[in-house]
Amino acid sequence: MKIVVHIDEAEQWQAALAEALPQATVLTSEAPAEERKEADYLAIWKAPAHLLQEQTQLKGIINLGAGVDYLLKTPGLPKDVPIVKLRDAGMGELMADYALYGVLHFYRSMDRYVEQQQSATWKPQEVVEKSQWPVGVLGLGAIGSFVASALQQAGFPVLGWSRSPKQISGVDCFHGDDGLSELLGQVQSLITILPDTAATQHILNAERLAQLPQGASVINPGRGSLIDEQALLEALGSSNQQGHLRGALLDVFHEEPLPSDHPLWQHPRVIVTPHMAAPTPLNDAIDQVISYLHAFESGEKLSTINPEAGY
Amino acid sequence: MKIVVHIDEAEQWQAALAEALPQATVLTSEAPAEERKEADYLAIWKAPAHLLQEQTQLKGIINLGAGVDYLLKTPGLPKDVPIVKLRDAGMGELMADYALYGVLHFYRSMDRYVEQQQSATWKPQEVVEKSQWPVGVLGLGAIGSFVASALQQAGFPVLGWSRSPKQISGVDCFHGDDGLSELLGQVQSLITILPDTAATQHILNAERLAQLPQGASVINPGRGSLIDEQALLEALGSSNQQGHLRGALLDVFHEEPLPSDHPLWQHPRVIVTPHMAAPTPLNDAIDQVISYLHAFESGEKLSTINPEAGY
Repeated sequence: MKIVVHIDEAEQWQAALAEALPQATVLTSEAPAEERKEADYLAIWKAPAHLLQEQTQLKGIINLGAGVDYLLKTPGLPKDVPIVKLRDAGMGELMADYALYGVLHFYRSMDRYVEQQQSATWKPQEVVEKSQWPVGVLGLGAIGSFVASALQQAGFPVLGWSRSPKQISGVDCFHGDDGLSELLGQVQSLITILPDTAATQHILNAERLAQLPQGASVINPGRGSLIDEQALLEALGSSNQQGHLRGALLDVFHEEPLPSDHPLWQHPRVIVTPHMAAPTPLNDAIDQVISYLHAFESGEKLSTINPEAGY
Repeated sequence: MKIVVHIDEAEQWQAALAEALPQATVLTSEAPAEERKEADYLAIWKAPAHLLQEQTQLKGIINLGAGVDYLLKTPGLPKDVPIVKLRDAGMGELMADYALYGVLHFYRSMDRYVEQQQSATWKPQEVVEKSQWPVGVLGLGAIGSFVASALQQAGFPVLGWSRSPKQISGVDCFHGDDGLSELLGQVQSLITILPDTAATQHILNAERLAQLPQGASVINPGRGSLIDEQALLEALGSSNQQGHLRGALLDVFHEEPLPSDHPLWQHPRVIVTPHMAAPTPLNDAIDQVISYLHAFESGEKLSTINPEAGY
């Protein structure tokens, strides 16, 4: 059985499917065209037309999301191949809740109250208007866009950034290197949801962290590789000396589990969470794909998409 | 100058106005009818018709909220008295954000991650569906209803309770003593936003706290008098021994500032905040009322409501 996967961060899906289906050949759409051909199944999200057009013996298409509108409009979609889709696994909502929790943590001074509690200090901090607390979201893929919109609906001005230009209703969108500097200079809290690519490695280095306003906070539910951890520690300062940044809520790290002697564990203004921002849904989604593949192979009757109806 | 105030918890407004305007007579609508008559100004929110009808020498009406629809429909509203309204002071949103932060804190196991961080322990906790995390809201006045709706929109099943029956879209409403027990038995997080009255003193006593499910959490942005603090401490258990309840986020206390030797400061599963859940807007609103009164008295031109336009 040959399966070709096309989705952001396809490697994660490839690895999980290969592990669950050791007899199958699992490729991503980055594989050479020669190898991609003659697939039995495509597990895809917003795939390019050629990936569909080049196939000759498809038995099934698994749409890696709940919406099939993009797939049904793709030229070359074979008419007689059954299509199934994932139920919405809720990853966007989990990520948005993590991001909103982090933003509220700093916006409502919960970091300071937790610190004050250590010395039984009763001292209300000022609450500024949300309009005075712009939030940046780096990465505007499916999940990043969802998070940006959720924060905007929660009342914060949201500035979004992606490599290439995007438009999201209610979100001030930036792109490219200059756009990134422009965004960083304006945000009180920064959320990083970029994929791990050569271009995003240490995208938050010492220089970029210094572009954030004094007292800004960083929330990383994305990928550990996005932030230079040493530069972040320096920007946070020490227990005794407040640095350029106020604090960080971090879910992902260069090395996971985060080594027990890593200074991020001990930093008084860092909250470490163990890669939990949106874990369950990916597993759930992969479980759904595997059960679809088993059902296709065993000839089990499946609830397939009706292209006429569009769902 | 005589001012009559009508709003939930009118005493707070009365006290603040009396302090700011020492020469004025400031009454609430609970004052005897004889005393309420011949007011110069009404500062009101959803006032009964008789309060308007009984007045004979009103100089102005201050609507204690941003919406004037209720006021404009009240029978007996005098046609020639200028009306001004408060800009929305955003208290509901501040309270809802505090409540949502608290619910997410426990729902997403942030309490456990902070504890695990102390020993550099990397251990993801299970995330249940929001449908498995019912949230209770005690108190369904203007702010409680706003908070209940906000939590429901955030995806949590919400159970609301008030002394007398209420209906809120999407919220499962309970009332009376039996309704309170029924609600308490079902909620994972409980938010208390009741006013401080004889009937609500220690409404969460040892018996009622025991009705919550094992592992439930309590979030109190309402009034310190609502919870028997000794009973709460016992229900939370000690550092070494987990009690019936999982944790608490508390903004209000019997004595404020919370005395520095109070055990709540030291409890490892309690977060103490210094009565900050929604402080600014009330002050801001009172400042607005005072500046309106000064403007009325000095004959300054005010931006008044146009009853024909309805705003």
